[in-house]
Amino acid sequence: VRILIDQTRIDDRSYYEDLDSEDEFAAFRDRYVTVPGEIYLDGNSLGLPPKSTLTHLDSNVRDGWGSRGIRAWMECDWINLPFKLGDTVAPLIGASAGEIVFADSTSVNLFKVVSAAVQLNDSRKVILTENGNFPTDEYVLQGISEFRDDLEVRAVSRDNIAEALKDDVSVLVLTHVHYKTGEIFDMEHLTKTAHKQGSLVVWDLSHSAGAIPVALNDCGVDFAVGCGYKYLCGGPGAPAFIYVRQEIQSKALPAIAAWMGHKAPFAFDSLYEPAEGIARFQSGTPPALGLIALQNGVEMFRNLKIEALANKSRLLGDLFIERLLAAPKMAKIHLGCPRDSKSRGCQVSFEHENSYAIVRALIKRGIVGDFRAPYTMRFGLPALYTRFVDVFDATTAILDVINTREWDSPEFTKQVAVT
Amino acid sequence: VRILIDQTRIDDRSYYEDLDSEDEFAAFRDRYVTVPGEIYLDGNSLGLPPKSTLTHLDSNVRDGWGSRGIRAWMECDWINLPFKLGDTVAPLIGASAGEIVFADSTSVNLFKVVSAAVQLNDSRKVILTENGNFPTDEYVLQGISEFRDDLEVRAVSRDNIAEALKDDVSVLVLTHVHYKTGEIFDMEHLTKTAHKQGSLVVWDLSHSAGAIPVALNDCGVDFAVGCGYKYLCGGPGAPAFIYVRQEIQSKALPAIAAWMGHKAPFAFDSLYEPAEGIARFQSGTPPALGLIALQNGVEMFRNLKIEALANKSRLLGDLFIERLLAAPKMAKIHLGCPRDSKSRGCQVSFEHENSYAIVRALIKRGIVGDFRAPYTMRFGLPALYTRFVDVFDATTAILDVINTREWDSPEFTKQVAVT
Repeated sequence: VRILIDQTRIDDRSYYEDLDSEDEFAAFRDRYVTVPGEIYLDGNSLGLPPKSTLTHLDSNVRDGWGSRGIRAWMECDWINLPFKLGDTVAPLIGASAGEIVFADSTSVNLFKVVSAAVQLNDSRKVILTENGNFPTDEYVLQGISEFRDDLEVRAVSRDNIAEALKDDVSVLVLTHVHYKTGEIFDMEHLTKTAHKQGSLVVWDLSHSAGAIPVALNDCGVDFAVGCGYKYLCGGPGAPAFIYVRQEIQSKALPAIAAWMGHKAPFAFDSLYEPAEGIARFQSGTPPALGLIALQNGVEMFRNLKIEALANKSRLLGDLFIERLLAAPKMAKIHLGCPRDSKSRGCQVSFEHENSYAIVRALIKRGIVGDFRAPYTMRFGLPALYTRFVDVFDATTAILDVINTREWDSPEFTKQVAVT
Repeated sequence: VRILIDQTRIDDRSYYEDLDSEDEFAAFRDRYVTVPGEIYLDGNSLGLPPKSTLTHLDSNVRDGWGSRGIRAWMECDWINLPFKLGDTVAPLIGASAGEIVFADSTSVNLFKVVSAAVQLNDSRKVILTENGNFPTDEYVLQGISEFRDDLEVRAVSRDNIAEALKDDVSVLVLTHVHYKTGEIFDMEHLTKTAHKQGSLVVWDLSHSAGAIPVALNDCGVDFAVGCGYKYLCGGPGAPAFIYVRQEIQSKALPAIAAWMGHKAPFAFDSLYEPAEGIARFQSGTPPALGLIALQNGVEMFRNLKIEALANKSRLLGDLFIERLLAAPKMAKIHLGCPRDSKSRGCQVSFEHENSYAIVRALIKRGIVGDFRAPYTMRFGLPALYTRFVDVFDATTAILDVINTREWDSPEFTKQVAVT
């Protein structure tokens, strides 16, 4: 579905108001905690809290930990939360029940699935990835090849992935939506190309899950990981997820073998025997508080069609891009993401040599985007709580900040650490 | 300091009331959430919540995540919580500021430090541990040796550790206080013996931190890990900690290299360059909610002397043991932990062929201990919230449950999964 923009009304706020009034997801915004007067466009980095999360977390901590102590694990069924949350997320990314578990961080989960992949495909010694993949993905692979000196990381540019898939590639590790450009890889094509010549495939879905449709099962993806605190709104540092294709679960073994991945954790056997199924990709005791906070974020998506959510985000992005590109006097700003929404994740990016200061000046105005070195400003557009008028107001502010050089003040140009 | 028990008053509840009235830590109990009528003796498995944790967690989630979104990482200084909590815990275990970081789970942290140790000491190929160490410790080592087939795990019995320290041992991995028996290893002797013949040493302090004195620096320990949800009262699945001795921090590299361990995480460089110091032992984004909940648990220990806390726990344990051992008709119960409190952690253990049913019958009465297969019942005695009268009432109930065979009912004997 391509949604056409009415270019004649692109500078008219009432156009955006009209779109909000027709938006089938408009009512969801009120279910999230928003700050009055603020336009939060950083849901690609940290999603907003569902209002229900605040009460749910508080009451669960009181009723569970506070009233039941250790028994809360069983009486509140916290022990199964990693799997229940996984099953709730599964339809968003084209997976089946029993293929996903929440555990640890994206980085640690990536370590687990890549270590499993290289053990499954151990006659090959190359881990192939994109040069410019999200840094933690690159670092995890570098750490593995440092620890296992028979393994080698080969990082090639985005356009050369397919041809780099030689018969020495054990596993291909890619991020589905690029963190900086928002560009979407062709998962189906690359997965099938990799499989054809005998490589396994790992996808990092951190910028995809809850943002755009993903078809893990249909593409035959072997392993995936993803983030709980971006579009899934699980809270800062929320547990991440692991997907392992049903057919290889009983053969795949992560290098991190730990008690919650054991077939009988409470038998306290000395010998590690991995659980059947996805449970073996758990490691330590599940982070219950993080899982409880994540629950409402994930539940918000139940019965929603991810394609419809993505369509709204695409239109938000198209409007954001087209309005800025159409504006006069914008010579120094460049589009940093695909213009075609079919190739773009749930964010827009722009490049400007003063992006850092511009982003900070915008934050001062209550418009929260983020900066990625060296020149990128990013704005996330999650469908459940982003309004069309937010796009109008944010782009108006961006134009103003740039055209008036409001950013050109030591208050904004002085570099401080930002996440 | 040996505290002598007045054996003549051991069956007299007023004796325990007197001890409570003289207890310098008595006032702390009111700062924890306790369930009226319940005697919670499972703090060795999951510590009780400080009352302040409930309000602190709720207000931080609202003020931080709810009002500041992504900016909470900096504005609330969540980004430094892993180190601040580490520095708060350091004096409890004889470490220095800058030697501890909270991250991930105990299992994942153990993987990180052992992987660092074997890389530091890579001419040797044996990982030595105790047969019967806590299962997740055994599993983690087995997983590493599966992933790195040049490495071998050698598990020997408790008494044979010292003589198994041959010149092929890369790293010795032990748990300071045994999870089942509560027995304390001689950290100083074993660490020095290991160092003398060139092995590195990792201690798991899960049952030690916040329970008994530990002297990491004085013993020259290389690496340690420990649990946040037992004596530190961080909540179910709380973040765990890692200790790395100052002198080896700049040489030690965990196999899990990830962005929060990078020297400049927000520079988004493609090449992994480890942070100076303990930060390189972080991996993914810190689990902020878990860290916030942990904060109050850890703060409770500030300015307290761990030796004084341990002395109270030792006396609680001595009374628990001596009263049960002195009771008539207790033929079938055996002491499962050292009788001498100098050799015992902050728990007592007993063995009985019907321990499982006995523990469940006690829970029905509101006396919460736990069961460890096949025959052990465990009772944790944290000094900050355990009263002397709790020991009297719990031992009275144990005697009653056993002597009346109250446990001998399908309600209690039927096995269900327990944590």
